[in-house]
Amino acid sequence: MKIAVIGSGGWGTAIAILLSSRGHNVYLWSWIQEETDRLKKDRENKEFLPGVKFPDTIYCSHDMAECTDGAELIITAAPSPATRTTAKQLSPHVKEGQKIVNISKGLEEGTLLRLSQVYKEEIPQADISVMSGPSHAEEVSRGLPTTNVVASEHIDTAKFIQDVFMGDMFRVYTSTDIIGVELGGALKNVIALCAGISDGLGYGDNTKAALMTRGLAEIARLGKAMGANEKTFMGLSGVGDLIVTCTSMHSRNRRAGILLGQGKSLKETLESVHMVVEGVNTATAAYEMAHKYNVEMPIVEEAYNILYNGRNAREAVLLLMTREKREEK
Amino acid sequence: MKIAVIGSGGWGTAIAILLSSRGHNVYLWSWIQEETDRLKKDRENKEFLPGVKFPDTIYCSHDMAECTDGAELIITAAPSPATRTTAKQLSPHVKEGQKIVNISKGLEEGTLLRLSQVYKEEIPQADISVMSGPSHAEEVSRGLPTTNVVASEHIDTAKFIQDVFMGDMFRVYTSTDIIGVELGGALKNVIALCAGISDGLGYGDNTKAALMTRGLAEIARLGKAMGANEKTFMGLSGVGDLIVTCTSMHSRNRRAGILLGQGKSLKETLESVHMVVEGVNTATAAYEMAHKYNVEMPIVEEAYNILYNGRNAREAVLLLMTREKREEK
Repeated sequence: MKIAVIGSGGWGTAIAILLSSRGHNVYLWSWIQEETDRLKKDRENKEFLPGVKFPDTIYCSHDMAECTDGAELIITAAPSPATRTTAKQLSPHVKEGQKIVNISKGLEEGTLLRLSQVYKEEIPQADISVMSGPSHAEEVSRGLPTTNVVASEHIDTAKFIQDVFMGDMFRVYTSTDIIGVELGGALKNVIALCAGISDGLGYGDNTKAALMTRGLAEIARLGKAMGANEKTFMGLSGVGDLIVTCTSMHSRNRRAGILLGQGKSLKETLESVHMVVEGVNTATAAYEMAHKYNVEMPIVEEAYNILYNGRNAREAVLLLMTREKREEK
Repeated sequence: MKIAVIGSGGWGTAIAILLSSRGHNVYLWSWIQEETDRLKKDRENKEFLPGVKFPDTIYCSHDMAECTDGAELIITAAPSPATRTTAKQLSPHVKEGQKIVNISKGLEEGTLLRLSQVYKEEIPQADISVMSGPSHAEEVSRGLPTTNVVASEHIDTAKFIQDVFMGDMFRVYTSTDIIGVELGGALKNVIALCAGISDGLGYGDNTKAALMTRGLAEIARLGKAMGANEKTFMGLSGVGDLIVTCTSMHSRNRRAGILLGQGKSLKETLESVHMVVEGVNTATAAYEMAHKYNVEMPIVEEAYNILYNGRNAREAVLLLMTREKREEK
């Protein structure tokens, strides 16, 4: 089967390696010619997955037509800020009913659209699915057991994609809840940031587990208001991805959170981390969505207050702990 | 308010410290007179919570009548194998309608009863609740922010107990799902054991998160068959407690799991860990319950096979990964 992978970052490359090792012909598209040249020469992605050699059935190309022509499946793996540009570039090459599965996570800044919605706007002729779950790219490229969930409005499409991906070390479940699967992956980073803040305050495992559990409950509440199935957040794209993100010791969200918890300002924190901290952007997005859909999200609210309203982190935790008494739901 | 805490292990002691620091008169009952004498002399629990001094309003006693007479709330914190004996000893001192909240986790060996069921059998005159959640005793004793959920058939009882426990650093939610709250805490250890096995095999975060997520789905499925609300497993006593247990680096379950993953037999593993490994007993209980209630629990099944049927751990993971394709649920 010919498969196109649009985007040669860490996750796109890992998936290209996975699928080519299963016998598919994978065309891996890079954003710029220089990147394609590098990958062709090195036969590995030295930036994101150093040491993992490409199987022979990965074809590197910067030519969108060459990559997509005759492909039975197109996989989009662009970083979330590049989603709309990539979708516009891809659209002319997409035939009616073409199956596309997006494997990137995030929300479009400004519009707060889920990434599949952006693809749908730009490529209305396509059949768009999403895939998500707890999956460090590096572990997938090394063949460590990993599970994901693929969601499509059409269960047959989900099953088709499940068939393409499933193998000994990559297990795929199907779902028809695109909204739920996408929101879990998009919003987890704000909770990872809060977990980092808790660590920065010197709090322990109890506090972190509480933030993760109640944070997930908030996301599920928002998701339900947006049309998702609450149960999806208990699955691989919800709690599964959250666990991987919060327990990863090297995450930027965690590092940024620790600095915020220690009392650094947002400006000082971002200067010190020196890279984009997804959780910060996600906190803003989640805050706006909570207000738009009129959903109570106290943890998100306090994260936003710490970031933008000068709230002391210790005080924020105290406010969360002493909110009015509630039933668990 | 006079409160009796029956059992002076780590968790019972931590809760006694929490409640006495909130102004209650707490009577802490120990299993043997020598333990009471030690606690009285040291004014700290040197075995389980070294360095945390008792507030003046903790009264240590081995006299069940003295502890319970006039107590508005009795808290039971006996280790799970001692549940029935403790309940029998406590029963004559319990008046009609007395509120008792059990904070220990586990199932009775042999009968597979939840601990609150054991208390109900032995003390039918009492109003029995349970409390559970992500809470290392040591962190609670040090005043780190912690959340728990209290479940009772009577929402008014749950609210009463919520009022007793709630403070700046201990937040309590209410629930009416006793079965769900108890099962989460009782069965989590088998998943912690599996997470350890995964580490022992050299697998990564992806695999562990998958085992935790799908393991929790199995427990929720069993819980539902037993009359619990599935949503409870997404809460503090479910995923919250699971996260704390699986990420705790010093857990015996994890150490035992690592040895099993490295190919040691159950006998060798138990000899090497040299202590009771709760996950091993829980695996047997969960396996039996799965068959009794006719619920599919593939992870529990493979854990059982590794422990008792000589299944190679790597082969067990492969079998789990290559099961028939499924929808996520």
